[in-house]
Amino acid sequence: MKYSVEWKDNALQLLDQSRLPHEERYDVLSTVSEAADAIREMRVRGAPAIGVAAAYGVVLAARESEGGTSEVRKAAIMAAIDRLATTRPTAVNLFAALNRMSTALARSEPADITSRLLAEALLFHDEEKEATSAISSNGASLVPEGATILTHCNAGAIATAAHGTALGAIIHAYRLGKVKRVIATETRPLLQGARLTVWELVNEGVPTTLITDSMVGHVMHMMGVDCVIVGADRIAANGDVANKIGTYGIAVLAHAHNVPFYVAAPFSTIDMSISDGQQIAIEQRRETEVTTFGGQPVASGGSDVLNPSFDVTPNSYVTSIITERGILSAPYLSALSAMAKNQGRKRG
Amino acid sequence: MKYSVEWKDNALQLLDQSRLPHEERYDVLSTVSEAADAIREMRVRGAPAIGVAAAYGVVLAARESEGGTSEVRKAAIMAAIDRLATTRPTAVNLFAALNRMSTALARSEPADITSRLLAEALLFHDEEKEATSAISSNGASLVPEGATILTHCNAGAIATAAHGTALGAIIHAYRLGKVKRVIATETRPLLQGARLTVWELVNEGVPTTLITDSMVGHVMHMMGVDCVIVGADRIAANGDVANKIGTYGIAVLAHAHNVPFYVAAPFSTIDMSISDGQQIAIEQRRETEVTTFGGQPVASGGSDVLNPSFDVTPNSYVTSIITERGILSAPYLSALSAMAKNQGRKRG
Repeated sequence: MKYSVEWKDNALQLLDQSRLPHEERYDVLSTVSEAADAIREMRVRGAPAIGVAAAYGVVLAARESEGGTSEVRKAAIMAAIDRLATTRPTAVNLFAALNRMSTALARSEPADITSRLLAEALLFHDEEKEATSAISSNGASLVPEGATILTHCNAGAIATAAHGTALGAIIHAYRLGKVKRVIATETRPLLQGARLTVWELVNEGVPTTLITDSMVGHVMHMMGVDCVIVGADRIAANGDVANKIGTYGIAVLAHAHNVPFYVAAPFSTIDMSISDGQQIAIEQRRETEVTTFGGQPVASGGSDVLNPSFDVTPNSYVTSIITERGILSAPYLSALSAMAKNQGRKRG
Repeated sequence: MKYSVEWKDNALQLLDQSRLPHEERYDVLSTVSEAADAIREMRVRGAPAIGVAAAYGVVLAARESEGGTSEVRKAAIMAAIDRLATTRPTAVNLFAALNRMSTALARSEPADITSRLLAEALLFHDEEKEATSAISSNGASLVPEGATILTHCNAGAIATAAHGTALGAIIHAYRLGKVKRVIATETRPLLQGARLTVWELVNEGVPTTLITDSMVGHVMHMMGVDCVIVGADRIAANGDVANKIGTYGIAVLAHAHNVPFYVAAPFSTIDMSISDGQQIAIEQRRETEVTTFGGQPVASGGSDVLNPSFDVTPNSYVTSIITERGILSAPYLSALSAMAKNQGRKRG
């Protein structure tokens, strides 16, 4: 198991995902500024991994503030939380993690701010590990024997700081002997599929076929695909799913070919505060991600360039949502509400 | 107007499309071997342009054979035709051109083989120029005022040795003041959209937006697209369309968004000898087109890689087929048959 985010030797250790698969480098981060940059520049990526990295980023801010008065420290840590919140807009796990750290900060005693925040970050990380373990097992139960599964982008161990969501389910199903082959889309512009998903699957020994994003329809039509499993960056209360750009097109193609379309995500990815996907902020990233390829300019100049990092798949295209608490089907608003309430009771 | 294929100074002049947009280089080809390599390596690409280049390639073979007996020469030229036919399997224009050259060869007198074949190639080229001019005008008539048009790959002047098919129609509509914006997909793996379509559109002053192939669904949903216009590499008798990989996915998305999906192609692209798209040979190209860029590896190793150059869009997703002889709608079998018969009568 490769971990992309770890707290080790009093510092945040991050696998630099932008260098994979050519270089497997771990960076040691000791300031919140470094953590914010790593998230913004996608050296750490994947909604659950971003959340965990941000939680540890708050711990780094607490360490940097040591020596000040309690009030000055709390103000500095709150400023750091605000700063981390501006790094990326779409993945809700980031905000869920920062909210927890903010609450923990408010409840901490002056003498133990750092240790209280570190304990909260470690607990959050442990919960995410447990969640992805349960998601892997729940998701694998949906995979038929001898399955060809298609996935998009990377929702693997390195995206989640633990077992992976979509890829966790796929690898779990493979270990159960149910998977014949995985089709991985390359996932332009940043090629998380070609670089990261293929790397994780091949490391696990899973027979894998790499395709460009444009080949999904042809592959469904000619080879047959038994199910699609993808991750999510935010899920609205009605089950609309924000995920890597291209997910929506795959969902429409899956629908046209009667292929089940599954979304695997921890409950922390679900944002019950928004009613539907239209309200999810879609991050627009640099044009150069599109106009260059592997660092080299590829496009003719003079045009506008769009680079939305995510799209929204309407709930009507989602066969099931796989969470650590169970597998949900439409109607999602009532299913998600019931699950959120049950969890509230368990905690209370 | 940029021409990609010309007969000039007793040689075949080809714009090397693989170097665009960074370098605008014309190669002078004087042997059929060079012509075959240029087609196979996609230095000349686009179904109509391939046909014209192959016709001139046969002329080069005739010149190379000069000095031999008539029988030896005809055998050498037939071998050259067979060789050119193996360069690429999907675009039917290649075979249509070679059939014409073969017939012209059979009818030529020993003394004037080269001049007879050159005359036929020039005539074929002129007919393709006229055809794309009529296609541009016919296609533009379908474009509504203030249109946002999406196109895939490159079906422009350089792909057709003349005015372009899909891009010809779009540019004609732009000159008529009907086009607000063109959305061009980058078109992995060889990026003909980012490199060639953007280059042609920007040269013509058309407001253009470049997107990755994976953004089509998001753009249709969020920005609105008034119609899709693409080219074709082969159209079966029932109206099924083989075109650049990714076309099928765009057609399904267009259908889901009630966006008209138009295919623009010369009648030489229609293959009445096959009943449906399942019978169209789909070219599989090198894995390294997907796994490397500019010679640099971009994907993790160890997986299989698919690289079909084309896919087939079923006729049910095709709103209209735009040809030089008119605009056709479903049912395509009867419409295409009637058009083929009328032309037969005109010629006869």
